[in-house]
Amino acid sequence: MAEPIKLGIIGAGLAVKQLHWPALQRLRANYTFVAVADVDQHKAQEIATLTGAERVYTDYRELLALSAVEAVLLALPIHLTAPITLDAARAGKHVLLEKPPGANLEQARQLKEQLATLPITTLVAENFRYRPNLQQARRILSEGGLGELILLKLHSVSRANTDDPENFAGTPWRHDTQYRGGPILDGGVHHAAALRLLGGEVEWLQAFTKYGGSKLGGTTTITMNLRFRSGALGTYVYSAVCHDEQSSFLGLTLYGSAATLLVDNDALRLSRPGQAPETIPVEADPGYYGEFLNFYQALREGAPVVSTVEQSYRDMELILRGLDSAEQAQVILL
Amino acid sequence: MAEPIKLGIIGAGLAVKQLHWPALQRLRANYTFVAVADVDQHKAQEIATLTGAERVYTDYRELLALSAVEAVLLALPIHLTAPITLDAARAGKHVLLEKPPGANLEQARQLKEQLATLPITTLVAENFRYRPNLQQARRILSEGGLGELILLKLHSVSRANTDDPENFAGTPWRHDTQYRGGPILDGGVHHAAALRLLGGEVEWLQAFTKYGGSKLGGTTTITMNLRFRSGALGTYVYSAVCHDEQSSFLGLTLYGSAATLLVDNDALRLSRPGQAPETIPVEADPGYYGEFLNFYQALREGAPVVSTVEQSYRDMELILRGLDSAEQAQVILL
Repeated sequence: MAEPIKLGIIGAGLAVKQLHWPALQRLRANYTFVAVADVDQHKAQEIATLTGAERVYTDYRELLALSAVEAVLLALPIHLTAPITLDAARAGKHVLLEKPPGANLEQARQLKEQLATLPITTLVAENFRYRPNLQQARRILSEGGLGELILLKLHSVSRANTDDPENFAGTPWRHDTQYRGGPILDGGVHHAAALRLLGGEVEWLQAFTKYGGSKLGGTTTITMNLRFRSGALGTYVYSAVCHDEQSSFLGLTLYGSAATLLVDNDALRLSRPGQAPETIPVEADPGYYGEFLNFYQALREGAPVVSTVEQSYRDMELILRGLDSAEQAQVILL
Repeated sequence: MAEPIKLGIIGAGLAVKQLHWPALQRLRANYTFVAVADVDQHKAQEIATLTGAERVYTDYRELLALSAVEAVLLALPIHLTAPITLDAARAGKHVLLEKPPGANLEQARQLKEQLATLPITTLVAENFRYRPNLQQARRILSEGGLGELILLKLHSVSRANTDDPENFAGTPWRHDTQYRGGPILDGGVHHAAALRLLGGEVEWLQAFTKYGGSKLGGTTTITMNLRFRSGALGTYVYSAVCHDEQSSFLGLTLYGSAATLLVDNDALRLSRPGQAPETIPVEADPGYYGEFLNFYQALREGAPVVSTVEQSYRDMELILRGLDSAEQAQVILL
């Protein structure tokens, strides 16, 4: 086996602690941790202790100056992602960055173009692209198990807990947002990834939005209609301010001409008219392991990056063009 | 008690047999049946036998010529409703007509205007306006039980059984449609009634549609976004070609700022964050009894008609403007 990746971590918040670290622990042979940077020294130290990293910085530039760091994991507030990704890439580091790849489309587009000129590998931590349930759904669909796809439904309705600082909706940068769309961008890019993964490229979209009702900044409820290039329709609803008893973050159903597939966390449910539904168990994995493994294989084995900046940019575009549609009362051709 | 209404029935198909007759049986003191007309004499005779009507015609004009008939029930293929309603009204008969009140908006508008000049009472058999579950939901909402209404969801997905002639989707006039919208108009006006009853008037709408996949004529799947004048959002999906295990014809949820209300046939389910959900039983009544009682009370007691031609026209407008939106790729201001 090739050498482990010598990783630096920039941003030591909830994502690293709650989402990335459990996955990285399963990849101990693939990663060693060199340094951690965060404006909050206490948080940086906490992640350093967890990962065994020996160096702690409050200025990420010091971390980027270390020749011992070959790649960085960026888990930052949305508005900081693009500039610091570019700094890291210019310092010659490979970058695994959190989604979305910018605070707005123009910034993300510029980042995409600038990265293309630099000899480094980037992967966006869009875990939905690595989720076994979505991968399995995609397989069933592409093998014709549902017939022609007619309608894709993704409805994610829940009231975000904004009071608990150990909850993502409780982080201050999500309340005082320096990016458009608030939770609809932040959470919505995951949904967009799922919609595009399963429905293919979107041709037309339209949305209405509603603001407020939460400490979360910006738009808090969106209803979006989609028409995919394939001719399939899509209905996407995301609300961070409405309570739903049965809600999951991924309330996803694929309606085909022959069968319907309900996608849960740990199982898919396939049903056909007049037949008993079939439950297909899947690994209840959020996809973080897959993204870190893909990053390793991309750097060490030349494997293609699954979750590219380009893909993530298009996810972001879907959401932000939805906001345009709502503001301009227009149907938008992507 | 005042005299029963002397009713003639024009159109002796499934609606009269399966939907109206069970309700009319509970109103035996309010209605007597004079005559039945249908192009199919066998069907007319069947309903005459059921109701005790002594006269059977294959030409409805003969029924309208009877002075013993004071009111008629029209249950006809959609494209015949407006002209025959007008004939009945001109013959001086009060009319209870099936929805929608025309084969297209222009025809329905003309009917509305012509009826306004005639001294008769009309009621559209939009049973959703009389359903106890919707009435109860409306009461809870108007009393502030959900807080501010944020999002109204109505999703009705099921694969219509087009092969059984005793099923509504099996009737020939629904396969060889002489009206726009197919099942989306025919069934959709019920949904539009529910959406307007609970959300109030719609300000903006947008839809995408998909054709085919069924013997049913015309559009078979629609996704519609709504923005009500109140600022609440709506998501409406109707498909007659997709299978849904958990589907009901009325898959309705109201999301408020304080609570969420799931509307089932025989119960409402009220849930608030952090509290055990509350089940509120309601009478599982489809509303046909209520519409015939309202017609009686309107004729005999001067009660206001709840389901007017104007209301039904606006339900129809919501659906047909949705089809316009899909065809023109435009957001539509109602």
